[in-house]
Amino acid sequence: MTPPRFDILGIGNAIVDILAEVEEGFLGAQSMIKGSMELIDAGRTDALYALMPPAVQTSGGSVANTAAVAGQMGARAAFIGVVAGDEFGAIFRHDIRGSGVHHPTPPSTGGDPTARCLILVTPDGQRTMNTFLGVSSSLAPHHLDHALIADSAISYLEGFLFYVPDSAAASRRAAEIAHAAGRRVAISLSDFLCVERNLNAFQTMVRDHVDILFANEKELAALTGLEDFEEAADVVRGQVEIAALTRGEHGSVIFRGEERFDVAPVQAKVVDTTGAGDAYAAGFMTALTAGRDLPTCGRWASRAAAETISRMGARPPGDLSYLRG
Amino acid sequence: MTPPRFDILGIGNAIVDILAEVEEGFLGAQSMIKGSMELIDAGRTDALYALMPPAVQTSGGSVANTAAVAGQMGARAAFIGVVAGDEFGAIFRHDIRGSGVHHPTPPSTGGDPTARCLILVTPDGQRTMNTFLGVSSSLAPHHLDHALIADSAISYLEGFLFYVPDSAAASRRAAEIAHAAGRRVAISLSDFLCVERNLNAFQTMVRDHVDILFANEKELAALTGLEDFEEAADVVRGQVEIAALTRGEHGSVIFRGEERFDVAPVQAKVVDTTGAGDAYAAGFMTALTAGRDLPTCGRWASRAAAETISRMGARPPGDLSYLRG
Repeated sequence: MTPPRFDILGIGNAIVDILAEVEEGFLGAQSMIKGSMELIDAGRTDALYALMPPAVQTSGGSVANTAAVAGQMGARAAFIGVVAGDEFGAIFRHDIRGSGVHHPTPPSTGGDPTARCLILVTPDGQRTMNTFLGVSSSLAPHHLDHALIADSAISYLEGFLFYVPDSAAASRRAAEIAHAAGRRVAISLSDFLCVERNLNAFQTMVRDHVDILFANEKELAALTGLEDFEEAADVVRGQVEIAALTRGEHGSVIFRGEERFDVAPVQAKVVDTTGAGDAYAAGFMTALTAGRDLPTCGRWASRAAAETISRMGARPPGDLSYLRG
Repeated sequence: MTPPRFDILGIGNAIVDILAEVEEGFLGAQSMIKGSMELIDAGRTDALYALMPPAVQTSGGSVANTAAVAGQMGARAAFIGVVAGDEFGAIFRHDIRGSGVHHPTPPSTGGDPTARCLILVTPDGQRTMNTFLGVSSSLAPHHLDHALIADSAISYLEGFLFYVPDSAAASRRAAEIAHAAGRRVAISLSDFLCVERNLNAFQTMVRDHVDILFANEKELAALTGLEDFEEAADVVRGQVEIAALTRGEHGSVIFRGEERFDVAPVQAKVVDTTGAGDAYAAGFMTALTAGRDLPTCGRWASRAAAETISRMGARPPGDLSYLRG
């Protein structure tokens, strides 16, 4: 097998984040579940945006964030995801390329705008997300560049894709292409509500197509139906090659077969948790594809997550190679 | 004379800022003068943006920033300035209204996009600005709402308007309307290069139309042709009612006739100086229109400036009434 040209190929929704700080009461008044992600339509997007305080716009998207942070950490990263030819699309394309990420997907010429995520950051640093997928939801099997997938050590998917049938089909097809080329498939479960609402698809995907699983405790519980972390972990460690399970302020646990590595969290002042899991996956896969052992993967992952939560937005700026090690 | 409905009416360019952190060498390679503002055309904007690292988008514009911060501090603020019906225009309108600022100018239906300013922030916290004015440069006398000007205690203008003949004409016309209604006119000189290149227009404006002058040392030197601060201050204190002259880390000096008040700077960790002068003017005029004395005006001004330079972007988020006092 020839060495891959890319370490990590992300396949996911291409989104611009609109972040604003709000008080706790804002979430309740809008019937939002703190820490979750809900899909919203264009009308609700306009209505919610009108209620939000002045905001900051930055590139986002879960897998896109991972690709960007991995690129900034020095991994050879690529990303497949659809934007429109509008101003938000220009922001997204500019930023992901500026992170050193190859992004070959051409802008759509259709009518839908680039996706946006209205993110409400509460004083405790938690983020609650409301996503209008726009043209991003057109991601379908025909967007997959087979040669690119075959030339990437890991194809990395997001659970959010399972909200859209065509995008879910693209996820499964990408996994088949990657495995046919002898490469690995990774996925983040993304969000516990998303897992609950698409449970069969998630369970089938993880069992049949995933080599490397990223999940937090709530997502793991949703996937397995088991509230006890150890019991739930026992289920998934039998299904995937590597499971990297995050536990918030308690750090993370990495399983590979009979091996188990407990990873201490890296301390950070919490400003905004947006992108913490994305950065964790970036650090982990950057180390893994650099040939590092699993404890090192966990350490790079935790360092990347800590850096991300200590500031607003999902992608710390600049060269992030200092997070290696 | 009836009490005014608004304390501060800003008239200026409606801009979205695109901020990125760069090393010193970036400025030199692009032949930029650190700390200045240059107008650029659409082609140069695209070329420069392509060279910039991943960025953050926030609402900007000098006078618009002042109106927003004043609104957040509790002043009754309004703003006249032109955006397009595009995504950046939506950002601008959302944010200025979210700061409590009345913004009656309808979006333009013409072909030019909303203005954007590419801001390069160097490690010393200095910002160097490159502005594509787009539709903002269409600001002309017909945009002036005479009743609104007559109903505002202070009409506040920016020197940047003098780069565009129609906008300069709007500045002079606004001043005439304000004075005919018995109101005051304030201006920020904006940028020393802008003053140098439009010197006659600035000198005439300050001498004939301005009651309250905001300037930093370099702008003051450009206006008067005098390098010595005290000599230059002596010139302008004879021309305007109040001169608030900022001296960077050395604080500011306020002159009114024979009165002089030296204002100590408020200490802050410098992250990004974008908007420092705008926030200073906001704090100053918020206090002045609240009937406070000049030392208090200087203190609110310095507190607002310090808050602004301690973070990325020109407008600190949230309720800023804690800056009063």
